[in-house]
Amino acid sequence: MKQSKPQDTLRLIPLGGLGEVGKNMMLIEYGDKILIVDMGFLMPGEDMPGVDYIIPNTAYLKGKERNIVGVVITHGHYDHIGAIPYLVSHLGNPPLFAGELAKAIILRRQEEFPGKLNITTIADGQKFTLGPFRIEPFRQNHNIPDNFGLVIETPLGKIVHTSDFKFDDNPVNDPPTDYKKLERIGKEGVLILLSDSTNAEQPGHSMSEKIIMENLDEIFSQAKGRIITATFASLINRIQQIVTLSEKYGRKVAPEGYSMKTNLEITKHLGYIKAKKGTLLPTKEILSYPDAKVTILSTGAQGEGRSVLMRIINKEHQLVQIHKGDTVVFSSSVIPGNERTVQYVKDNLYRQGANVFHYKMMDIHASGHANRDELKQIISLLQPKYFMPIHGQFSMLVNHAKLAEESGIPGKNIGLIENGQVLTISKTGLQVDKKGVPCNYIMVDGLGVGDVGEVVLRDRQSLAKDGMFVIVVVVDRQTGRVRGSPDIISRGFIYLRESKDLLHQTRKKVVDTVQQSTGSGGAINWVYVRDNVRNKVTDFLFLKTQRRPMVLPVIIEV
Amino acid sequence: MKQSKPQDTLRLIPLGGLGEVGKNMMLIEYGDKILIVDMGFLMPGEDMPGVDYIIPNTAYLKGKERNIVGVVITHGHYDHIGAIPYLVSHLGNPPLFAGELAKAIILRRQEEFPGKLNITTIADGQKFTLGPFRIEPFRQNHNIPDNFGLVIETPLGKIVHTSDFKFDDNPVNDPPTDYKKLERIGKEGVLILLSDSTNAEQPGHSMSEKIIMENLDEIFSQAKGRIITATFASLINRIQQIVTLSEKYGRKVAPEGYSMKTNLEITKHLGYIKAKKGTLLPTKEILSYPDAKVTILSTGAQGEGRSVLMRIINKEHQLVQIHKGDTVVFSSSVIPGNERTVQYVKDNLYRQGANVFHYKMMDIHASGHANRDELKQIISLLQPKYFMPIHGQFSMLVNHAKLAEESGIPGKNIGLIENGQVLTISKTGLQVDKKGVPCNYIMVDGLGVGDVGEVVLRDRQSLAKDGMFVIVVVVDRQTGRVRGSPDIISRGFIYLRESKDLLHQTRKKVVDTVQQSTGSGGAINWVYVRDNVRNKVTDFLFLKTQRRPMVLPVIIEV
Repeated sequence: MKQSKPQDTLRLIPLGGLGEVGKNMMLIEYGDKILIVDMGFLMPGEDMPGVDYIIPNTAYLKGKERNIVGVVITHGHYDHIGAIPYLVSHLGNPPLFAGELAKAIILRRQEEFPGKLNITTIADGQKFTLGPFRIEPFRQNHNIPDNFGLVIETPLGKIVHTSDFKFDDNPVNDPPTDYKKLERIGKEGVLILLSDSTNAEQPGHSMSEKIIMENLDEIFSQAKGRIITATFASLINRIQQIVTLSEKYGRKVAPEGYSMKTNLEITKHLGYIKAKKGTLLPTKEILSYPDAKVTILSTGAQGEGRSVLMRIINKEHQLVQIHKGDTVVFSSSVIPGNERTVQYVKDNLYRQGANVFHYKMMDIHASGHANRDELKQIISLLQPKYFMPIHGQFSMLVNHAKLAEESGIPGKNIGLIENGQVLTISKTGLQVDKKGVPCNYIMVDGLGVGDVGEVVLRDRQSLAKDGMFVIVVVVDRQTGRVRGSPDIISRGFIYLRESKDLLHQTRKKVVDTVQQSTGSGGAINWVYVRDNVRNKVTDFLFLKTQRRPMVLPVIIEV
Repeated sequence: MKQSKPQDTLRLIPLGGLGEVGKNMMLIEYGDKILIVDMGFLMPGEDMPGVDYIIPNTAYLKGKERNIVGVVITHGHYDHIGAIPYLVSHLGNPPLFAGELAKAIILRRQEEFPGKLNITTIADGQKFTLGPFRIEPFRQNHNIPDNFGLVIETPLGKIVHTSDFKFDDNPVNDPPTDYKKLERIGKEGVLILLSDSTNAEQPGHSMSEKIIMENLDEIFSQAKGRIITATFASLINRIQQIVTLSEKYGRKVAPEGYSMKTNLEITKHLGYIKAKKGTLLPTKEILSYPDAKVTILSTGAQGEGRSVLMRIINKEHQLVQIHKGDTVVFSSSVIPGNERTVQYVKDNLYRQGANVFHYKMMDIHASGHANRDELKQIISLLQPKYFMPIHGQFSMLVNHAKLAEESGIPGKNIGLIENGQVLTISKTGLQVDKKGVPCNYIMVDGLGVGDVGEVVLRDRQSLAKDGMFVIVVVVDRQTGRVRGSPDIISRGFIYLRESKDLLHQTRKKVVDTVQQSTGSGGAINWVYVRDNVRNKVTDFLFLKTQRRPMVLPVIIEV
């Protein structure tokens, strides 16, 4: 064989996160050994009704379970850990490595699933070895503590994986960025830098949490009634800011929402959230305090259907209603697609007499990702030979690649690939393999993993658009005559009670069509009869309504 | 009667546009005479699958058709004219009044509908009288020419309706804002100002079209391949900019997309779009020019499913494919909810080798609405006694009301109402009537107007989430025994071919349930049998899959 020494190449294979925002999962192969970084899920869009999550396709790892040396988790956000319960058992239960906080979040979630996990704690600067890989985690600022970039030493050289990151000289709950350490890593030589592209289209420098703190402080100092904050339960550092400010202004804090309560419990227990004794109270107890002494720390900043904030405005929350003069603070960005529901929530808060602050009116949210200036800076600190943009939509990866080129990395040394593509590094340089690996969406819906595919999704979309129209006809096997009147069951099409005329005409159409199709004698072709009914009724309903419900005829022969 | 002299009161009744962005329609009543301003539609959200448009509910006008003195249209955007074909004939065909361009757009659209319209052209400064109302249109800058604010003289004083507007000292295709005229109107005394709230949450001053022009010029000056612009067909002034720049850089322009072609035809004919002879060419002809001499003026900036841009990236467009080195310019904001599809389009343009500019990377789109500074300025120019925020989500109306109060209008003189509420102005001041008028959504779906209601929509949402599951069982009327095996038709639930086991178990469950329900003798309660099958199967499927398809049993008695 000509292709000798496969051990002298490194292969980088993203199964998720490249060409999308979410379900991050990267394979790093040397020889036949495979290291996995992260195992996240992706939240589905409106075009995937009923789907809970999308997880990476791990078909490529089938049969290679024994080659997996370990799974290293960079931090405890669900787009980096969410697929663990669905995948680990299928991958031969490889050992997991995660920071203290991520580990606690993973283990807590695993309680809802069968199977035990084997997780080792990792920490800043503490090196460990997995097969041919020697790994050094290094602290990176984000919006959750215990977030690690990874220096992965391989026989070919060092890979640096940034994790999600931003540079922050005045962070909350975290030490500031350690530029000296990054410089040191750079000086030791970096073969390839894998860097976070989420904000590669955003000019300038990301906002420091210090500015957010100042603006939140202003809101707290002026609020007269209760303060209700809406944020992600995963924005641990933002939660710390709200707790700190509440203490400063003599407010008690009640967490609301399952994920918020759980995360507070975990982070407080581990010391990641610092709160004085007596600051945190259950909602039941806090309600006896005067409004000016109360903060409610809630989820629902995205307008999710059953979230705390949605239940409050719909007056379905058992304990909390809006009081006139309450201040509601949306301290979170809005995920694309959620703008309408968030507006709905805001409007109703105003209608019920609250004052609302959101991040478009005032800087009360900062992204956890590096903008273009920081992306240039990390390239200049690390001076990598090769570069690979990771984590982001394809447009972000492209613009990150362009930025790297502007920063002095030659185009041929930049590996711009997407999920399922394979980037090979060898002594002769970078190469994108002609053959990719499977990377299509695996959808999780209820207990089913992967059983909702294109066909089912297409049907759901079609049902949503014009509904369905089932026709049950009983036909005499011998004569081909219809017995009685066809049954019609329709949903999502038109309001049947107000459409008696249309139903009457449609029934007649069905009877006529069946009787024409069965003919006057001889063997009856039941498939033909059914198709004929479907086509005739579809055309008839479209003519009458310009809608195309899914028409499903059932012919019962008796 | 105590409530004498109803003619001494003015009643303002918004049927649309207050508490939402879209379907603007305002009634102004004096005595029994009714003036209507605008008649728009609203585009539905993802929670209304299959719905084409939402139009205002005009139930309040039922029986009052002869009191309608006229419908005045402020400008030719669909959120101000879109409901005309659905409503005018139901309102006794009142006379319409519109600027030259709006009139042409309305008449062109009406060709697709039955019935003739009676439209009179209005123009800047040309007063006309409708019943007790004397109306003077005044030119306002927006992003379509021929946009008019209205001074409406009534026996109680002057109402000023701003229409959609912004102040622009360097507009395209329009003279700059005439502050002197506004000042003059103010000096003559304004009873109440109805002002556009769309950008009442945006600080500062709206961007001038001049800046957009400079940035677009920069893109044009550097583009080497074709330029493909994506914008709304209704942004007539933006289209003019693209035509002007194409001429400057020696490019021919091909309009693509039905609405773009139609609007160009209308505006060019009327002189609102100025293009040299030979600049505009059909796409077929333009393809013989070198790439550097070609601009394609297309729709699809929102990632709409069948739009030109979507067909291009999906390689379904008959004439246009992306060439490497093409420049695609998104010169339009993204409507909330469309971010994901727009990202999909952008990613695919990059994948196919295009360079992409969008408004978040560079100022190549400006809103057509006044920001807070301009909103303050119009209050200060007009010095109204009363104030009413119009056009916008409730949060925008609230923040506009607050801005008016900060600008010196006493809170009691501000009428903050929403669709369906009635604001009465009399000598004693403003008052919101206790009784409102109907203002629920009227949905247009295909040929049906109003026949899709809450029930149908809820069914569509439910079908989209977990699909449906129809069971047809043939039961012997006498014995209550099931004949043969039940038929199952399911869509959008799971992929049936791969779920034979589940189907088998469900059939057994159905047979057992029917036979238990029909009992061992006596009369059979068929409703009970059906309900029992529905409940048992629903529970069974949830247990097995954690999904809740819509279960629809059909029992055929033979």
